[in-house]
Amino acid sequence: MIVVMSPASTKQQLDHVVKMVEEMGLTTHLIYGTNRTVIAAVGDKRMVDKGAIENAPGVEKIVPILSPFKVASREVKQENTAIALQPGGASIGGKALGIVAGPCSVEDRDTLLEVADAVKAAGGVGLRGGAFKPRTSPYSFQGLAEKGLQYLAEARERTGLAVVTEVLSVTHVDLVARYADVLQVGARNMQNFMLLKAVGEQEKPVLLKRGMSATLEEFLLAAEYVINAGNPNVILCERGIRTFEEYCRNTLTLTIVPAIKRVSHLPVMVDPTHGTGHAYLVEPMCLAAVAAGADGLLIEVHPDPEHALTDAAQQIDIPQFQQVMKRLARIAEAVDRQL
Amino acid sequence: MIVVMSPASTKQQLDHVVKMVEEMGLTTHLIYGTNRTVIAAVGDKRMVDKGAIENAPGVEKIVPILSPFKVASREVKQENTAIALQPGGASIGGKALGIVAGPCSVEDRDTLLEVADAVKAAGGVGLRGGAFKPRTSPYSFQGLAEKGLQYLAEARERTGLAVVTEVLSVTHVDLVARYADVLQVGARNMQNFMLLKAVGEQEKPVLLKRGMSATLEEFLLAAEYVINAGNPNVILCERGIRTFEEYCRNTLTLTIVPAIKRVSHLPVMVDPTHGTGHAYLVEPMCLAAVAAGADGLLIEVHPDPEHALTDAAQQIDIPQFQQVMKRLARIAEAVDRQL
Amino acid sequence: MIVVMSPASTKQQLDHVVKMVEEMGLTTHLIYGTNRTVIAAVGDKRMVDKGAIENAPGVEKIVPILSPFKVASREVKQENTAIALQPGGASIGGKALGIVAGPCSVEDRDTLLEVADAVKAAGGVGLRGGAFKPRTSPYSFQGLAEKGLQYLAEARERTGLAVVTEVLSVTHVDLVARYADVLQVGARNMQNFMLLKAVGEQEKPVLLKRGMSATLEEFLLAAEYVINAGNPNVILCERGIRTFEEYCRNTLTLTIVPAIKRVSHLPVMVDPTHGTGHAYLVEPMCLAAVAAGADGLLIEVHPDPEHALTDAAQQIDIPQFQQVMKRLARIAEAVDRQL
Amino acid sequence: MIVVMSPASTKQQLDHVVKMVEEMGLTTHLIYGTNRTVIAAVGDKRMVDKGAIENAPGVEKIVPILSPFKVASREVKQENTAIALQPGGASIGGKALGIVAGPCSVEDRDTLLEVADAVKAAGGVGLRGGAFKPRTSPYSFQGLAEKGLQYLAEARERTGLAVVTEVLSVTHVDLVARYADVLQVGARNMQNFMLLKAVGEQEKPVLLKRGMSATLEEFLLAAEYVINAGNPNVILCERGIRTFEEYCRNTLTLTIVPAIKRVSHLPVMVDPTHGTGHAYLVEPMCLAAVAAGADGLLIEVHPDPEHALTDAAQQIDIPQFQQVMKRLARIAEAVDRQL
Repeated sequence: MIVVMSPASTKQQLDHVVKMVEEMGLTTHLIYGTNRTVIAAVGDKRMVDKGAIENAPGVEKIVPILSPFKVASREVKQENTAIALQPGGASIGGKALGIVAGPCSVEDRDTLLEVADAVKAAGGVGLRGGAFKPRTSPYSFQGLAEKGLQYLAEARERTGLAVVTEVLSVTHVDLVARYADVLQVGARNMQNFMLLKAVGEQEKPVLLKRGMSATLEEFLLAAEYVINAGNPNVILCERGIRTFEEYCRNTLTLTIVPAIKRVSHLPVMVDPTHGTGHAYLVEPMCLAAVAAGADGLLIEVHPDPEHALTDAAQQIDIPQFQQVMKRLARIAEAVDRQL
Repeated sequence: MIVVMSPASTKQQLDHVVKMVEEMGLTTHLIYGTNRTVIAAVGDKRMVDKGAIENAPGVEKIVPILSPFKVASREVKQENTAIALQPGGASIGGKALGIVAGPCSVEDRDTLLEVADAVKAAGGVGLRGGAFKPRTSPYSFQGLAEKGLQYLAEARERTGLAVVTEVLSVTHVDLVARYADVLQVGARNMQNFMLLKAVGEQEKPVLLKRGMSATLEEFLLAAEYVINAGNPNVILCERGIRTFEEYCRNTLTLTIVPAIKRVSHLPVMVDPTHGTGHAYLVEPMCLAAVAAGADGLLIEVHPDPEHALTDAAQQIDIPQFQQVMKRLARIAEAVDRQL
Repeated sequence: MIVVMSPASTKQQLDHVVKMVEEMGLTTHLIYGTNRTVIAAVGDKRMVDKGAIENAPGVEKIVPILSPFKVASREVKQENTAIALQPGGASIGGKALGIVAGPCSVEDRDTLLEVADAVKAAGGVGLRGGAFKPRTSPYSFQGLAEKGLQYLAEARERTGLAVVTEVLSVTHVDLVARYADVLQVGARNMQNFMLLKAVGEQEKPVLLKRGMSATLEEFLLAAEYVINAGNPNVILCERGIRTFEEYCRNTLTLTIVPAIKRVSHLPVMVDPTHGTGHAYLVEPMCLAAVAAGADGLLIEVHPDPEHALTDAAQQIDIPQFQQVMKRLARIAEAVDRQL
Repeated sequence: MIVVMSPASTKQQLDHVVKMVEEMGLTTHLIYGTNRTVIAAVGDKRMVDKGAIENAPGVEKIVPILSPFKVASREVKQENTAIALQPGGASIGGKALGIVAGPCSVEDRDTLLEVADAVKAAGGVGLRGGAFKPRTSPYSFQGLAEKGLQYLAEARERTGLAVVTEVLSVTHVDLVARYADVLQVGARNMQNFMLLKAVGEQEKPVLLKRGMSATLEEFLLAAEYVINAGNPNVILCERGIRTFEEYCRNTLTLTIVPAIKRVSHLPVMVDPTHGTGHAYLVEPMCLAAVAAGADGLLIEVHPDPEHALTDAAQQIDIPQFQQVMKRLARIAEAVDRQL
């Protein structure tokens, strides 16, 4: 941590800040510049409260040097982490891309099985589908709950696909973990810290979606919550951020894929469905995500998007999905990956 | 709802969309323009799934006409709602401004009582303080939990101030409601729909903070979740949004105060502490918020911000708070309000 | 400047960076931390190219210590700068607030004179009005050009109000400076560096509007361009930034007023008309801006906004303006300012 | 255009708005809904001033139906436009990708020729390099001006590469057009309407970069300015927008590539250098841009980025560029394009 004193600060203020820093267990080095005095605070305490020092008289600003995340970082683990979606099953984070697809919501048994068969046949490794739905409006369809989980489990028995489904609340973690292979934490819950701890205390892998206004650092700190609670199997998933752009529901930021990979060993997926919000944008963004280095994709597929109960504008249908998979195979090869 | 067909759409596509709209229980009116055909869909169904139609062939875009929120809107209730923080106590939303202040976290009994006395003496009506803290990093101080709630209750006994404190999880609602007068739902939980329902099913008023990337519409829909679950007493609180601005922790958008008041009857508070992130910005933004029409303020005050366990950079100390209150009294009078 | 080396960097890389920094004329101090080695570079070169170092092998990041702006900063001039709009006339930046009002565009002589009379009578000090209009669409009204400037000058003769009008291009600077008292550089031109230099090379004061996506630092650097070219009379004007918010045309960030005043001596105005985009939001934001510490306001006023050729949605009419001025007088007094 | 009346509006207000709309030369259709009355205004006037109506009493909101841009739209021209960078030379917008590369600034003759040879050898079609530099700070290197243009022209003679260089001001258009093959309008000038007209009035193709906070609609309207002034040869270029993201200089939004292609016939390039701001992010974003459907790339290449006078952090060196080109060839093939 670097503490920059203001030009008008006094010797007494400087001494006071040095004392504060040393009380935190850090060593100080003073650098007297032309316009400013700077205190370099040395030591391994990542999370000392910078605010306390920032508010001290005479301080202009604080500059952190260490990233606040630790176990998610490449400093701690240099090689990439690959995470098996099911024991002995396909992994996310190795050479093979992991495509997880399925309807936005589980609506009924037949529709789900039809999609599951198509996902399996086209080369997917996981089946997604919401049983508990986070809806912006209280008047919208809220999901089938446990019945939905049962259908998902049945689809797994039939196809072998790993089941990835969202858990909305601490009170549902046990229930969802009983049926699912991977517990998804949605964008709106990325900083629901109680939920992060709860999924960290169970054993199934966690797919953590980036919050709509989360920085890279906050995203990795959310992963750190899960890992810190005991569960090292966190798959990150970019799904678009909120900006002023009006032609898409969210702004998908693929640059975060190589940016995360530089600082973290965790696998990174991309969700071009929520990341764009329009079916016609899904295919190009699937291709671009893989070209940018994504380890997998989360895609919403519905046999009849027009009649889907949720997210109808952004789901692609089965023939479109099959075409995406064919084109993905070519892109994967061009970047030395495989489907 | 208005459905705009693309110029290249066929008669058959138009007929198909008309049929879809009518199956939703809406009446259709066709308008043949110079470049486009437009379908006006008439009826009181606020939440039909526009996505389904948007994804139909030949459709260019959908334009909703009705706001998706209802019970929070002025259409349903024209006069302003004032909400008593305690039975028979001060209200937020009437002529008197409601100032709620206190430390970021409840740290210990003596500090809390010291602040409570100062808030009461300066004319505040509520005491804030976190017992359960949502922290970006798992390594940070997480709050005193029930012990913190007990200190808050003791401060209420002593001063008469209403206790406003955050509830982080469905599993804590009962516990927090036992001690607090007002349950706060934090910005990170504004779309934690399970929590919104849970606070809607108990009787204490709810202070709902705006999410960092929430639109006005999403903010009011979150309030609608609470009201819809049975609790009409929702106080809205602007606390800054995430933008590219670098000199502040969040961008405080005071314009939302009159914008909400135009479409909703609910009272609106402003939190200039989180809304700016720096102690030196708190006073001017308190004054500006009241000038803009806010019904109350949420202010972090600590006797010794430098040694605060959380948010040290943005808490003001007691003398600063006393000065803010004096200046606020003058602004309040200038806009025909009172402290 | 602080250079943070990555944990994996070598001694040779460190030596190389030290050499680069010293070649820039800076002195280096090495700090060996627990996880990182840090190079503190000391000297008064504000604008050495940090990028060069950032791209050197082994460097993790660069942290600037000095702000890049200089002549606009309080370090160079501690007392506030007040700028006379006309020789011997009213100033912006002193105790008195400066209200500059008028139509979006100069449309015709009579309308302009009617507004000018009303602005003068209500206590304004300047008359705004566009003769050259920056329009998003090439099909929109582009302004009356020199004829508009002549009407503005006539209104000045009649009322004594200072004329504030926008200059769109280097090629118009002479022409506009012949008629206007203050040259406005619009938000879309805040980084039109050729124009900044050109208005810096003439003598009339400059009203510089913040770009829609400008940081505080970029805003002050734009002012620095003007001052550096020879013209110290720069009035800054916040007018809203682009965010995801949907209920307003721009997000007005009043927090920048005290934030600028902390680091710069220049006066700061606020434009609540463009800053909100809707007439009903103008009054509350005028009051809030003054409460936040603004030195003046820029307000669009039109006798008949419905028939205005530009910005009809956001202009207030004359009776509304008169009411704003009355309410402003009360707020001004509450913050020890005067109209 | 759809005009939505508020529920509380009167018959008289409705009649007044109908009259306003009809005075604009549009036909009206009234739709009486359950909660609202809606006026559908039919006719081909794209740019009537919606604001006038929005400000009329009783109006809740206005919803435009037609896009404001016309000549840039696919409605007017359905097939893709390909634009030759030089008469008889390579085009942007056909099956072949157009790679334009070169240093950020033209610094000296030898460096430029070295890069030009490398760009040519690796398969590029254009040479970029700034002779006039838009710099955030007045203290930074501002470019070699005409001398730089002469070096660029010499490099074209030697290699055959088309010269793409930025024009900063109306006063430079003739000079730059004398040497360059393609005139670039930078992001900061995307709404410098005088400059847009000026480049529209000369004959060389224009490369128009998206402003940092421009919507898709504003971007196409800027193109429309150029086309409308007489020059149909506009190449669009995405270069990142300003958001809250902290790990990159801008947020590159590749989704805009297929979104533009849906509504416009103009070719679209991507600039991953400015779009990310860090050399290590350039390669993955080049690959992703082509996978997303971009027609070409603008890449900054410097033989010795560490010693570049501008943008040192984000330029790649020649071996890195050669590797990018090899990988691009594979991606191009995977999406049925070619280098």
